[in-house]
Amino acid sequence: MKPIPVADLKAFTLQVFLKCGLSKEDAETAAEVLVTTDTWGVYTHGTKALYAYTRRLRAQGLKPLGRPHVEKEGPAWALVDGDSSLGMVTGVFAMRLAVAKAKTSGVAFVVVRNSCHFGAAGYYASLAADQGQIGMAMSNDVPSVAAPGSLGAVLGSNPFAFAAPSGHAGELVLDIATAEAAGGKVAAAAAEGKTVPSTWLVDAQGKPTGDPTLFIQQKASLAPMSGHKGYGLALMIEILSGVLSGSALRDRVGIWMREPLARPTDHSHAFLAVNPAVFLGEDAFLARQDDLFGGIRGLPAAKGIDHIKIPGEIEQDKRKKALAEGIQFPAEVLRLLRVAAEENGFPVPSFLDPAQAG
Amino acid sequence: MKPIPVADLKAFTLQVFLKCGLSKEDAETAAEVLVTTDTWGVYTHGTKALYAYTRRLRAQGLKPLGRPHVEKEGPAWALVDGDSSLGMVTGVFAMRLAVAKAKTSGVAFVVVRNSCHFGAAGYYASLAADQGQIGMAMSNDVPSVAAPGSLGAVLGSNPFAFAAPSGHAGELVLDIATAEAAGGKVAAAAAEGKTVPSTWLVDAQGKPTGDPTLFIQQKASLAPMSGHKGYGLALMIEILSGVLSGSALRDRVGIWMREPLARPTDHSHAFLAVNPAVFLGEDAFLARQDDLFGGIRGLPAAKGIDHIKIPGEIEQDKRKKALAEGIQFPAEVLRLLRVAAEENGFPVPSFLDPAQAG
Repeated sequence: MKPIPVADLKAFTLQVFLKCGLSKEDAETAAEVLVTTDTWGVYTHGTKALYAYTRRLRAQGLKPLGRPHVEKEGPAWALVDGDSSLGMVTGVFAMRLAVAKAKTSGVAFVVVRNSCHFGAAGYYASLAADQGQIGMAMSNDVPSVAAPGSLGAVLGSNPFAFAAPSGHAGELVLDIATAEAAGGKVAAAAAEGKTVPSTWLVDAQGKPTGDPTLFIQQKASLAPMSGHKGYGLALMIEILSGVLSGSALRDRVGIWMREPLARPTDHSHAFLAVNPAVFLGEDAFLARQDDLFGGIRGLPAAKGIDHIKIPGEIEQDKRKKALAEGIQFPAEVLRLLRVAAEENGFPVPSFLDPAQAG
Repeated sequence: MKPIPVADLKAFTLQVFLKCGLSKEDAETAAEVLVTTDTWGVYTHGTKALYAYTRRLRAQGLKPLGRPHVEKEGPAWALVDGDSSLGMVTGVFAMRLAVAKAKTSGVAFVVVRNSCHFGAAGYYASLAADQGQIGMAMSNDVPSVAAPGSLGAVLGSNPFAFAAPSGHAGELVLDIATAEAAGGKVAAAAAEGKTVPSTWLVDAQGKPTGDPTLFIQQKASLAPMSGHKGYGLALMIEILSGVLSGSALRDRVGIWMREPLARPTDHSHAFLAVNPAVFLGEDAFLARQDDLFGGIRGLPAAKGIDHIKIPGEIEQDKRKKALAEGIQFPAEVLRLLRVAAEENGFPVPSFLDPAQAG
């Protein structure tokens, strides 16, 4: 398969969302989130899941015309109800609200209930950085990660993202899960018949294990990042997102990729925006960021490494390449994009057709 | 040695700070921070360092009568200058300010420059929880932790703390460094002739190593928590604390326990307070916290473990025991408390005198 032009992928994704009944604006927003994530090379959180989002939209577990809206607010905070619309639509609404409030308030914190899986947390944090602000984004999810001493999953791999702009040194975008390693990596090892580091998994007796087949058989959970540290951060996210907003907690959150597709999952998120301009002024902040990033990049690096990277730098390089040359997806993503086309009543687009695209 | 009564330790610490020229209020604040930390069993960040703080106070690198003060502020944010006073005095000032602002603004973010080592980050986060709010506290420090691909230390072990109250289920207090393991643990292994997990250290070629003697010889750095994740979080803290506040960054931060003692270290901190009352109301929030904590504690636990713990629970149990029975310090802390007494012109207090206390 030839690389897929970003514009073609975006147009296809937009059409699929429109077909599901989204407004033009919301379809555009959701397509932008997913395709941007793909340009970063983060294929696990991009259009790969388009088929899953649209299954839920067709089943009305996600409302195609849902309207995220403010339930309560002050100058520096808001409680948003996602109205079971797409997590990407609600996430963008909430982060934009936080940025708008921080513009005058200096800081703003927005919590969201009644949402769904929102894709890559880093996308929302980066929206703040694009506007010259510092952003944080986080979300809860169904339990997949053990706690120290637990016999099974206690919390989700609750993602956390942070982004900050600089003057000339690029945007920092950190996007991490609070599990030691992603479930997708464990599944890949199982498929290839390999073992994984024993720091990645916890078996049904609460002991470390390197056998990825146990995870596939649901006889092992992901291990929290650095043990009690990742567990604590995941709990922080559960509180800031779920407890504060009044949304579902832990195992009451719905599994977004599975049945029942007609029932909202009630995921929750939290977004923080900090406006650096109020502290030292925008120019001084950006110059100090350049100094920090440049200083780190200038440090001696290990053999075979060009320079020490700022988080998000690799993804920005991939994005440049994707915009210039298109995206070379793994076969599994291509297959699922074809599923999205077929299930939504579209012919397989030529860029996804091996016979045509060769 | 018999356990030391908490009241005796507090009175001693207070007297030592007064002798260094602190006001009664500031001496009380600093003693409370350090002794509370000791009651949690976190001996690395309590009165163990009293001698080091007082050396710096006597050398005027910490100003005994320094006054932390607001440089700039809005209803939901502030920039505080620590005036090179004790980090504990400045930290308490800044977190109280954040909590007071969040009471009306819903959220408040306070950054601090021109401070010093502030002890345990968890103490400040817990101040917010004590007032029914959610708190975050963080600080930068001199580099001791490698970045992915670096040949040496890039950032400090930049601590991060989060705290949140509940109705009847206790306070959550998470306090973590962004290194995989603490330098103190590595030093202890070296002293005992043991190796450490190779995930803890990075050698001078940027490779993992389990040899703790390399760290002692400054030929190895601490590894970041879960690699790029801990590195990214440490950078986040460097930005929120150091870049935003206009304080020293990375290797320009002073080494607080070493010469030059007369020069301020220019550490920076950041504090966030979120008032849950504005979202769902205080009672609903606390009940939801009880539900979350109780649900986790009720899950099946591994053999030999009574129940899954909420972060800070172990420390609260230790505090109860300490208040009832006194604190049984490791020998090294007792030795350094005697140093603090001697260097500040006090006779060794009876509770620290092996001859008397037996």
